[in-house]
Amino acid sequence: MNFRLIFKILGYILLVEAAGLLLPMGVSLCYGEGTWTSFAIVSLICAVPGLGLSRLRVGDRVQMQGRDGYMAVALAWLGLSAFGALPYVISGAIPHYVDALFETVSGLTTTGATVLTEVEHLPRGVLFWRSETQWMGGMGVLVMFLALMPRLGDGAVHLMRAESPGPIKSKLVPKVGDTAKILYGIYVGLTLGETVALRLAGLSWFDAVNHAFTTIATGGFSVRNASIASYGSPAVVWIVTVFTFLAGVNFALLYAVLRGQWRQALRSEELRLYTGLAVGATALVCLNLCVQTGIPLGQSVTDASFQVVTIMTTTGYATRDFALWPSFSRILLAMLMFAGACAGSTAGGVKVSRILIHLKSLRRELGRIVHPRHLSVIKMDGEVVSESVVATCHSFLAAYLVVLIAGALVVSWDNLGFEESFVASLTCIGNVGPALGALGPMSNFSALSLLSKLVLALEMLMGRLELFPLLVLLNPATWREK
Amino acid sequence: MNFRLIFKILGYILLVEAAGLLLPMGVSLCYGEGTWTSFAIVSLICAVPGLGLSRLRVGDRVQMQGRDGYMAVALAWLGLSAFGALPYVISGAIPHYVDALFETVSGLTTTGATVLTEVEHLPRGVLFWRSETQWMGGMGVLVMFLALMPRLGDGAVHLMRAESPGPIKSKLVPKVGDTAKILYGIYVGLTLGETVALRLAGLSWFDAVNHAFTTIATGGFSVRNASIASYGSPAVVWIVTVFTFLAGVNFALLYAVLRGQWRQALRSEELRLYTGLAVGATALVCLNLCVQTGIPLGQSVTDASFQVVTIMTTTGYATRDFALWPSFSRILLAMLMFAGACAGSTAGGVKVSRILIHLKSLRRELGRIVHPRHLSVIKMDGEVVSESVVATCHSFLAAYLVVLIAGALVVSWDNLGFEESFVASLTCIGNVGPALGALGPMSNFSALSLLSKLVLALEMLMGRLELFPLLVLLNPATWREK
Repeated sequence: MNFRLIFKILGYILLVEAAGLLLPMGVSLCYGEGTWTSFAIVSLICAVPGLGLSRLRVGDRVQMQGRDGYMAVALAWLGLSAFGALPYVISGAIPHYVDALFETVSGLTTTGATVLTEVEHLPRGVLFWRSETQWMGGMGVLVMFLALMPRLGDGAVHLMRAESPGPIKSKLVPKVGDTAKILYGIYVGLTLGETVALRLAGLSWFDAVNHAFTTIATGGFSVRNASIASYGSPAVVWIVTVFTFLAGVNFALLYAVLRGQWRQALRSEELRLYTGLAVGATALVCLNLCVQTGIPLGQSVTDASFQVVTIMTTTGYATRDFALWPSFSRILLAMLMFAGACAGSTAGGVKVSRILIHLKSLRRELGRIVHPRHLSVIKMDGEVVSESVVATCHSFLAAYLVVLIAGALVVSWDNLGFEESFVASLTCIGNVGPALGALGPMSNFSALSLLSKLVLALEMLMGRLELFPLLVLLNPATWREK
Repeated sequence: MNFRLIFKILGYILLVEAAGLLLPMGVSLCYGEGTWTSFAIVSLICAVPGLGLSRLRVGDRVQMQGRDGYMAVALAWLGLSAFGALPYVISGAIPHYVDALFETVSGLTTTGATVLTEVEHLPRGVLFWRSETQWMGGMGVLVMFLALMPRLGDGAVHLMRAESPGPIKSKLVPKVGDTAKILYGIYVGLTLGETVALRLAGLSWFDAVNHAFTTIATGGFSVRNASIASYGSPAVVWIVTVFTFLAGVNFALLYAVLRGQWRQALRSEELRLYTGLAVGATALVCLNLCVQTGIPLGQSVTDASFQVVTIMTTTGYATRDFALWPSFSRILLAMLMFAGACAGSTAGGVKVSRILIHLKSLRRELGRIVHPRHLSVIKMDGEVVSESVVATCHSFLAAYLVVLIAGALVVSWDNLGFEESFVASLTCIGNVGPALGALGPMSNFSALSLLSKLVLALEMLMGRLELFPLLVLLNPATWREK
């Protein structure tokens, strides 16, 4: 493990955070809020160790290894969370540090679970910081760093790999720095597009920017107590639905579309399954709502499509209290929380491409029983998926289940029911946001114990970083000398 | 696919069932019950096609393949279930065929979920048949056939492999027929041992035999409405706990112990994890009951250990209504339903050895990140586990989750809650028996819709046969010519 290099990267990341804190400071100053000082102080607190660490010397010939990438990403996210919580505490918006940490981790990981009972009375600077954490975490802070300062050489690919979601990493262009720039370009473009669309639909600039931030990041924080429902506008609901869906698509496909390669994009197996699952789940929820609750078809189409897309992309806005929907719909939504959207998007969950690999792998097993001598490989979009990727995918699922269950067991001590505990763990590891029951979309996580909040925050980080960086960090074998 | 051979085996299996039906006929005659005629009729109904099919000619040189084994096992179990349900209908004990089918499948698969509200008024012959289906299904009907008529040659190993649970098949002795005899020898020995122990503890011979049948098969049917609680005897509870635990141990280890190889048995990694999980879960449930319900320590030790062992071995007796326990305990029990006991035992669930392979596989992945050039194999008890076994294990988990979720979704239409639906599916695929909530241990499955009953019965079969035989049967690709 090359700790000098790892800490140097950590230093840069703290500088990125210091810079990021200047934005809400500006917002506070614009609106004449006294909270600008909190952001200024924390920006300084980040800048000092950031400057120190970023000046660490590493030899020119030092090449970053995979493990360094995982370790740097794990430590960077822990650092970002620890410092990012300070403005909430200093400004008094969230007085307790653990609550502030929960909110920050929930932001950075684009989960969107909150400890705040209501948000509309908060200073705008604080609300903006809350949305910005989601936007920074959505595409990834290290990816942003790579886009801004692509000086790490070939080893940088390990940082990207460790932070970006999904089993198959398609470098868009040969250079990592350029890939990062393209990804952020699309990300900024989508954010601007939605901001304008929401402004045209009648939102204020402030509301439009914040919701665009948290939509494209598939985060789900809102600056309104009643989330998207507060605008009472079908246009807003549909704008958010469409952009949420786009944010759940693999950005490599969006890039292909931008370059005019429509066909290649539409042929993607993951996109097809993602779309199929979204449409199928919407249809089933619609049917269930019509039959078992008597909600008229028109409204149930809007409700179902919005809720399915926002849950499946692990965004987690709410227009209805789906915790009150019939259990068929609730189980289906829980399964979508588990599945998530496409790899290479800003969404959480297991990811559709992993599910696809699991299904293909199962089909291969069944084939092997019938034709034992028939050798076959697993292909995605016509390309062979290496067996090591398949194996990693499988281990990912097992680890995901272990973390999910452990989290549910811890949370269940808080006098929560079976459903609440289980889905609380599911929504946090999947970076969705709202759970069911007492932790449903019209409620919040403030009543949980400190232990539960810390465990759920850890689950969010595990989910966002796709388990392995933090598991490598926590695995005793990593620290044993060989 | 060699259908001539498959149907010949099916014929033999029906003959085994015809013979099996003579036992409850005898019991009915002993107690002077008129229901003996139902068993006689169904025995004849089984014998006719059984005799016909078993006389099919297959060439001497025909060698059974893996796929034939899977197909034969899948069809045999469907046939056993379809015919085994008839005595319930004809005797009037369970008038509706779907209910009777549910009860039979629940019996054969050693699930133990019932549609009967109360059992004590039923004829003893019917009760005996109910227990006997569990005993026959526990070690396996095809294994019994191999023990009785070991004439199939080397290909018979495929039948054994398709019916016996667990990822790693350890042939105890070179010949399949001899292995089957040894397995049944241990099985009969345990059953006799428990019968005598229960008789000494004060049960009638009838009650003792029936409970021994359903304990050693890890089935869970009882001839008492209040299950094991009805005897009000701590001695009975502890006898059942010990024998249930033994029935959850890999029978290959029990054989090793019988041959004096204590050390080898105690060194088994699966046995250690199984024991560790049982002890750990008991301690946690104890703690949870003491802290959150105020049940005194002594009683909570008895309750927790009994309930943990009976759930983990997927037996499913009840001495307490654990559906009323705090959610921590309920989630923990649900997780034990998922895990199950050892491979090569009569228990259901995913099996501890598969969990061990998943954990080892995960550890290997984490190691690979740190030391990418370090090649490593997965070992169990010092022996290398082949990569194809590891891959099958992984696909098994994915398929298990898919079936589990699909089942929960179907059941949830019956106005059941999230917890009830989810655990109903879990308890059926894991062959446990009782679920939680409205389908808890003090209730039954009679109120479910026909569709739910059929789907849950299918899940039981899938769980008992460890998915692949039925998935191969249902996979369209199996039937496409290559």
